[in-house]
Parts: sequence; C-alpha cells; structure tokens
Amino acid sequence: MKQKLKIIKIGGNVINDKDSLSSFLADFSKINEAKILVHGGGKRASEMISELGLKPKMVNGRRVTDQSTIEIVTMVYAGLLNKNITAELQKNNCNAIGLSGVDANTILAHKRVVKDVDYGFAGDVDNVNSDIIKVFLTNDLTPVFCAITHDKKGQLLNTNADTIAAELAKGMSKYFEVELIYCFEKLGVLADVNNDTTLIEKIDFLMLQFLKKENLISEGMLPKIDNCFDALQNGVKKVIIGKPEVIIDKNIKHTTLVL
Amino acid sequence: MKQKLKIIKIGGNVINDKDSLSSFLADFSKINEAKILVHGGGKRASEMISELGLKPKMVNGRRVTDQSTIEIVTMVYAGLLNKNITAELQKNNCNAIGLSGVDANTILAHKRVVKDVDYGFAGDVDNVNSDIIKVFLTNDLTPVFCAITHDKKGQLLNTNADTIAAELAKGMSKYFEVELIYCFEKLGVLADVNNDTTLIEKIDFLMLQFLKKENLISEGMLPKIDNCFDALQNGVKKVIIGKPEVIIDKNIKHTTLVL
Repeated sequence: MKQKLKIIKIGGNVINDKDSLSSFLADFSKINEAKILVHGGGKRASEMISELGLKPKMVNGRRVTDQSTIEIVTMVYAGLLNKNITAELQKNNCNAIGLSGVDANTILAHKRVVKDVDYGFAGDVDNVNSDIIKVFLTNDLTPVFCAITHDKKGQLLNTNADTIAAELAKGMSKYFEVELIYCFEKLGVLADVNNDTTLIEKIDFLMLQFLKKENLISEGMLPKIDNCFDALQNGVKKVIIGKPEVIIDKNIKHTTLVL
Repeated sequence: MKQKLKIIKIGGNVINDKDSLSSFLADFSKINEAKILVHGGGKRASEMISELGLKPKMVNGRRVTDQSTIEIVTMVYAGLLNKNITAELQKNNCNAIGLSGVDANTILAHKRVVKDVDYGFAGDVDNVNSDIIKVFLTNDLTPVFCAITHDKKGQLLNTNADTIAAELAKGMSKYFEVELIYCFEKLGVLADVNNDTTLIEKIDFLMLQFLKKENLISEGMLPKIDNCFDALQNGVKKVIIGKPEVIIDKNIKHTTLVL
C-alpha cells in the first residue's frame, strides 16, 4: 500500500494577511503525514512592480511576464514569500525546504507557445521529478514550492500555482496515495458564488458535465476544476477545494471532487 | 578514506558581470567531485534598495540590516541571484539546488548581539546541518547557498557569505575531505594589494603571525583569512584564495593556506 501524501495549495487570500498566514502555517505544521505546500504570489508581486515604477500587465486575468516582471516575481515568490513561509514552518518544527521548480530540476517547463496572446516568460509544465521529491519526503523534509519553474536552458518561467499543485499531485502519485487540497476564501465550489448555502459538496465527472452545461461554475473556478479532474484522471486519489481550516478539520464543509 | 568535497565561494566581482558569471558557472559545472557553491550578493541588493527609494546603511564596511533591508536582501540573494545561478547551472547539466540556511534548517544562526553597533538582522552562525547536506550530495545534487540564514524563531538573518562558506566547510569535514576555495578579483593574498607580483603563494600559521605583526594584510583581507584559519583548525583540509579560474586550472597562481 502506498504511503499517504497531502499536497496543499494556498493562494493570495491566505498569503496577503500576516495573521491568516501564521494561523494556516501553524495548522499545516500539525499534519503528521508526508506533505507538500504550494503557494501562489498574492498581491506582493504587483505591489513591488508598482513600487519600482512599473505597471503590472494582465490579459484575460493572467499576468504577462516580461523581463522586468520575471525578475520581480522571482524575487517575491522564490525569495521573500518562499523563505519567510519556510522560516515560519521551521519555527513550528516543520522541517520545510523552500523550492522552486529550478531547484534539483524538480519542475521542468517550457515557455508558453504564443497563440493569440504572448504571455512572455510564462511556463507550461512538462515534467515533475518525482524521484528527487520522494528523496526529500523520505528524509522527513516538507517541500514548499513557489510557482517559478525553468526550461533547463537557463530561463526562469512564471507558472500558475494551481497548475503546479496539480502537476506535483499527478507526478507524486507514482509513489504516494495523494490527496490534493486547494485552499481559498470560499467554502468550496458554490452554485451561487455569493451564497455559502449553495455549496456543492461533491462533484464527480457526471456532475461536472451537468454543472458546465448549466453554466453553474464561475469563470475563475473553471480552470481550477479542470486542473482537479486532470489530476484525478492521472492517479490522484482525492481532491478537495475549501477554506484553509479544512486541512486539519474535515468537519468544515468543503467540496470533494472524485472521478 | 573520506570522499572529496569542494566548497567554492564567489563574491561581487564574479556576480556583477553577466559574462564573468556565465563563464564561472560553466567552469564550476565541469568539476566532477562533489561540490557546493556559496554566493555573495554583489551590488544588486544595494541597487534594489536605491530603486525602492531607500538608502543602504553601512557601518565599518558591513551592511546594517533593518526590516526593509532584510526583505530586499532576501528577495535579491535568495530569489533573483540564487534562482538565476541555479537555472544556469541546470543549463550546464549540473544538478544544482538553490538553498538558503532556512531550507531544511541547513544553517542555523542567531541575531548578532549588539555591542558598539546594532547591525540589525545580521546573523552569526550557530550550526550547519551536515547530515541533510550529505543527503543532497549523495543524491548527486549540488547545493548552491545564498547568505541568508534563520534563527528557528521565524526570523530571516543576513549573514556574511565568507563566513557561510567557512562554516559549511567546517561542518562538512565531518563526512568529507573538504577543500575550501574563495574566488575574488585578485590572484590571492598580496603583500601590496596593487601589485600582482607580491603574491604570497603559501601561508601557514607562522607566516600568518609574521604578516599580521608586519601589518602586511589589508583590512578587507583580514576577516577572510581569519575565516580560513578557523576552517583549517576545524577539520578543513585545504583553503585556497584566488581568481575564479583557479577552480579548474591549478596552474593559475593563487594563495594556499595550510595549518
């Protein structure tokens, strides 16, 4: 039987508030099983871009990563956020190791092919080096990934953190029974995003087709859910979307996705 | 017999120039033995401090690290420089892993005790976790350390990169026959810093006493040499100070320090 592994992704809502982040990291440290944390960038990168007199460029809600931007997101995601999160986990006696996809060649990507929009130094993931990540886990380390990858030609690439989490989950399923948990500000997938009572507690593949057909999934949620089902179809055991507290308290309502 | 390990430190002169850095990293990748790279910060941190409208604070040639400064050096050293160096080593087929002392609790430090000067979030090293670094090396990884450490209370600390290299060399001597190489812009230790023909090719402990007595070591070089002898007295086999090219070509003149 495979050992259990939890892969947990946090985004801006947890990262932007110092107290929320501390409280989340304290909870995360209490998880006894093997675990991996993936963090997004929050608003700090956009703030830094502005502080340096530049303007964040977005197309269709996604960042366009030019040369200055890849430098700044590398500083903020791989430096400031990743090392502060890792230091706080170390304080909580969780032996965390902060990583980008460059480190130990853990996540290999390629620069996104230009179709309608040139997203610049945006990376699409090609491969997760599950062997070396397994070495870290079996040495009781807890990898903490920021969403920076590389192309093995020396270029750093800005990559979507939800996708990183799903790709890690797929890759690690080779060795572990993986549970993937996306933490965000809502209870889970809501039929009406402004109404917590419309939580959809369980989504299977049939339900997904129905929800899509009825246009009941918000535009922001769709790529996340597609990531989830991609993971489930590639070996991941279970995917959960919910509030950060769900990582230690399964009684808090959330959405479970299954095949 | 212990396996050989080279620990190589590069500073500003190599880092500030893109071509010098590329050329150095290509050479470094050719070293077949187990190896660790330690990099300083170069001028990029000071530039970033200025770009953000702040002023670098220095006392006695050392940086005073206030709250803004620790954030910026973490971004520049652990993010921008560390990840770009690691990506370029990956390009050269060197399986590098970028680390700060926070990651896997590799280098534990404490905030420097205030005597005459309050250096702020400056760290003095307490312990190197040689066991986990050995795990990385035996898995054919090449650790690349920036000079950021932590106190295991959640605080990041700015630490002298020469000292990091010496402490790593001392710590790893438990398992390896360590050669420590400091690369900088001169041929080595010069009796007259402006005259390459005054290179002192070998310094042992007696010679060191003589050079100190005669005031023949420049103020900037003294702490570096003290680091070297501290390393030699704590298990490190050999220390070299020289130009970056010395790492692959021992025919280039340099200074060797021995007990």
